[in-house]
Amino acid sequence: MRNLRLDLCYDGTRYKGWQRLGNSDNTIQGKLEATLSRLLDEPIEVSGSGRTDAGTHALGQVVNFHCKSEMPCQKILEGLRLYLPEDIGVYCCKEASPRFHARLGAKEKTYRYRLWNSDAPCVFERKFVYIDRSKLDVETMNQAAQKLVGTHDFSAFCGNKHMKKSTVRAIKSFSVRREGNEIVFLVTGNGFLQHMVRIMVGTLLEIGRLERDANTISALFGGNRSNAGPEVPASGLCLMEVTY
Amino acid sequence: MRNLRLDLCYDGTRYKGWQRLGNSDNTIQGKLEATLSRLLDEPIEVSGSGRTDAGTHALGQVVNFHCKSEMPCQKILEGLRLYLPEDIGVYCCKEASPRFHARLGAKEKTYRYRLWNSDAPCVFERKFVYIDRSKLDVETMNQAAQKLVGTHDFSAFCGNKHMKKSTVRAIKSFSVRREGNEIVFLVTGNGFLQHMVRIMVGTLLEIGRLERDANTISALFGGNRSNAGPEVPASGLCLMEVTY
Repeated sequence: MRNLRLDLCYDGTRYKGWQRLGNSDNTIQGKLEATLSRLLDEPIEVSGSGRTDAGTHALGQVVNFHCKSEMPCQKILEGLRLYLPEDIGVYCCKEASPRFHARLGAKEKTYRYRLWNSDAPCVFERKFVYIDRSKLDVETMNQAAQKLVGTHDFSAFCGNKHMKKSTVRAIKSFSVRREGNEIVFLVTGNGFLQHMVRIMVGTLLEIGRLERDANTISALFGGNRSNAGPEVPASGLCLMEVTY
Repeated sequence: MRNLRLDLCYDGTRYKGWQRLGNSDNTIQGKLEATLSRLLDEPIEVSGSGRTDAGTHALGQVVNFHCKSEMPCQKILEGLRLYLPEDIGVYCCKEASPRFHARLGAKEKTYRYRLWNSDAPCVFERKFVYIDRSKLDVETMNQAAQKLVGTHDFSAFCGNKHMKKSTVRAIKSFSVRREGNEIVFLVTGNGFLQHMVRIMVGTLLEIGRLERDANTISALFGGNRSNAGPEVPASGLCLMEVTY
């Protein structure tokens, strides 16, 4: 069996997220598996580096799958580009080592969250940002984000109430800065719990509005979900890169 | 009567163009007039600097309208931002001189045409570009575009077969250059005939594919529509700026 790697981007707006859901095809994984299975004429199951939520985008999702087909990578790439919907793009298709596994092998992931924070109209980027025009202290949010860096129990930032596995994760870097009309959150870590990035951003926004003190962050580690801020909408979130 | 000026942007994807069509509300002008009439509680008719085609976008459309209402400009701006659909944005609303007329007073307009010309996936910008991955000679297209600059009879570049008025227009500048994955056409003139920018770009693309010689351009002036190239799709076109 060959083991192939795909690098993908997608506009997640109209999808119910990455993970295939029973018979529903309205997921990125579902679309990709259906297209690959038809193209290679054998049942294909793909592993993504991680599940993105409904409405979340990706510029750098990584996937692997096994197949018997001998179709050259270039032909697979061309077939996918021809048959996948226009909101899913494929950068490349290449042979991977037999042991390569997109999810288990992922060492680090980087997510970006785009917040439109300006009185200016937001027409062309509206599906890729979250619009919040309130007054926000960017420098205070960036300082608070540094308190999230490191290895901590992120239980308070986990959207899955029934999480039975460890909620400890390591965040390597977290920056918050203004870029024109937007405030951009960029976070890299060894893994993220369900909704973790969106809850961290929601908590930082409370700090940016001076509704919460930055010093309360360390008290959240190991705590309950109810102590952290609300999760922000999926539209602003994008999986940027996965490293192996 | 007050005379007010609005500066607008819009994502034209889901509209049948600028100009109001009878009872159909699915035009930018229709949406704007309906919203203004409700907001100001009087029938409002707007004049746009020009009609944009179905599917064409605008970053710098200018509009004026007369009203009896004494509502301050800031309140009108806020009301429009609240009630207009999210694909129409308003930059500003201000008092204009009684003689200001957005269409009749327009001295120059600048249009941009974005062509996605790369093997890379085009997912996030797909509604704002035309995708053509063929090999194109950008420098030859740019040189040919200079032959369109000046005052000429653009009859061959007019999409309206029953045009009874003058088809003479003056083009001030026309540049064609590569910007990353895209080829960007930027043209400024004193006015443009129906579909004129799209037919000029379609003709330049024939030249860029070496299907047409750049020296044939001057022979098109005053000629028939059938001698020029095809019109390219509206999705790549955007009205950038109107000067008065």
